Amino acid sequence: MIERIGQYTLSVSGACLASWASAVGKKESEGPLGSCFDKTFSDNTLGQDSWEKAEALLQKTAVETALGKCQLPPKGIDFILAGDLLNQCISSTFGLRSFGIPFLGQYGACSTMALTLGMASVLVGCGAARRAAAVTSSHFCSAERQFRLPLEYGGQRTPTAQWTATASGCVIVAKEGPVEVEHVTFGRIADLGICDAANMGAAMAPSAAQTLLDFFSDTHTSPLDYDAIFTGDLGAVGSSLCRELLEKENVTGLERYQDCGMLLFDREKQDVHAGGSGCGCSASVLCGYILPKLVSGEYHEVLFAATGALMSPTSSQQGESIPGICHLVHLKAV
Amino acid sequence: MIERIGQYTLSVSGACLASWASAVGKKESEGPLGSCFDKTFSDNTLGQDSWEKAEALLQKTAVETALGKCQLPPKGIDFILAGDLLNQCISSTFGLRSFGIPFLGQYGACSTMALTLGMASVLVGCGAARRAAAVTSSHFCSAERQFRLPLEYGGQRTPTAQWTATASGCVIVAKEGPVEVEHVTFGRIADLGICDAANMGAAMAPSAAQTLLDFFSDTHTSPLDYDAIFTGDLGAVGSSLCRELLEKENVTGLERYQDCGMLLFDREKQDVHAGGSGCGCSASVLCGYILPKLVSGEYHEVLFAATGALMSPTSSQQGESIPGICHLVHLKAV
Repeated sequence: MIERIGQYTLSVSGACLASWASAVGKKESEGPLGSCFDKTFSDNTLGQDSWEKAEALLQKTAVETALGKCQLPPKGIDFILAGDLLNQCISSTFGLRSFGIPFLGQYGACSTMALTLGMASVLVGCGAARRAAAVTSSHFCSAERQFRLPLEYGGQRTPTAQWTATASGCVIVAKEGPVEVEHVTFGRIADLGICDAANMGAAMAPSAAQTLLDFFSDTHTSPLDYDAIFTGDLGAVGSSLCRELLEKENVTGLERYQDCGMLLFDREKQDVHAGGSGCGCSASVLCGYILPKLVSGEYHEVLFAATGALMSPTSSQQGESIPGICHLVHLKAV
Repeated sequence: MIERIGQYTLSVSGACLASWASAVGKKESEGPLGSCFDKTFSDNTLGQDSWEKAEALLQKTAVETALGKCQLPPKGIDFILAGDLLNQCISSTFGLRSFGIPFLGQYGACSTMALTLGMASVLVGCGAARRAAAVTSSHFCSAERQFRLPLEYGGQRTPTAQWTATASGCVIVAKEGPVEVEHVTFGRIADLGICDAANMGAAMAPSAAQTLLDFFSDTHTSPLDYDAIFTGDLGAVGSSLCRELLEKENVTGLERYQDCGMLLFDREKQDVHAGGSGCGCSASVLCGYILPKLVSGEYHEVLFAATGALMSPTSSQQGESIPGICHLVHLKAV
């Protein structure tokens, strides 16, 4: 069942996370969470002849692995909700076309894991689906050549730049499972005028703070009511700005706040500047790190608030600022 | 309330179309449906300094007009579901960022109007939203330079090529209104191996036929149970292929079948080759032509099945075929 709570939040019942899986590339497997992931690939081409095809296969692998864990054929899934960073979301459409599952394309940039998971939870909670899959991916090489510069150019990166994760995560939402979805807050676009495409963290921070504030206000809770709060991929710059914005609104308990972009890589040793980013960053950290802790009992309640920068190279070239968005899912161990 | 019917179809109750609006460019205003649209712009730049900004404004105009018709402020809308053809869906994110409505980005290529309308209907039907807006747009000039060639190049178009509509349509879904949503069928990806990006109609036809067959099978109905059946933008080539595929499956009553891409322009006089296309084609035909006929009593029940080609220029350059998708909404006059 779905009920509206306050102005922006949905209370969800009857939607659980039945299984999940992550698939990552070489650098991610060498990071601090390297041992957490289900599938790791030492060759970032995944044996494909283009980065785009490699990313599509990464997403397909995450879905197949999640299905395998709950012993379901693709036919057991009523909807697959997916999206990614590539133009026209081709990792999703090409990676998932062979499954024959009704396909609901979603676009939330790096917030996609929370968008697809939130929508899948609503569809299962309201009875539109018995089971739904939520999946997203990103790939460092396909993202660099599309959004920034060809890898061969060897361009220097600014200190505020983040490293797009080569990673995918997939969650199967069903009526039963070890983790349940309590609430979903779909975010509003926030745009405070940041135009620097090498500083996505700053562009996304206001939307993260806004969605968290909306959620706390709607549910009459504070960070201390949760074991951990994760934003998607704000990185060093963005997560510190998000913390600052929340403190300005007198939010306490921010020692519970972490950012997936700060967890995936070792910033000292892995040369990722301000941290990890990309749809696959929060997706793989959710599936590889956060959800297992909810199962093990280390966490009981968690907020997962993935963040996205809703621009394109074209809009930035035209001098537009970068609109940010953040969708939130409140998860609880059963 | 939402209930599953058969394998792929959702039965929806409590979701109605409260108001809708269309905004189109010069060529569309000069076509056979020219007098049907709410807003027409004789200057396709809409006074903006780029085609992308013009498209964003077109989408904003459609939303403002639809809100105006039902006398609602943006705050009266719980979710806005939007997407478009531009990389990273920037017409939607930039066109809609100022409204402050929780934003659910959707990607369905030219099927987006049925995807957003279907999802909005589910959200209202299940109580997740009191009201939700569904909107999409396309612009000939922004689409040409992104997907094909710069306009200045003056490239020749093949006979199978379609003309991307400069158009937007927005529907407000609410508990009450003159048209109700009866069923939604979200489609599966169909890919029969068409690789010619100048023949999208052929690439999308199999998905249209598949979704229509799924819907007829799930609801135990046939085309004769509806006053009219519209596919999105298959154009001359695709709609004739779709008809052929349905006839092969012994579907009768196809004299009720039409295609929005064949309605928007005069193919003889307007030099659009195989017909209209783009997200805005089916969106503007729905809002300007189909829905008014449901209100006037000319139609009582209609199927709106928008079709999308889920490729990008990159995937086509890499030799990939074009996956198609088609989402269907069954509408009934109240």
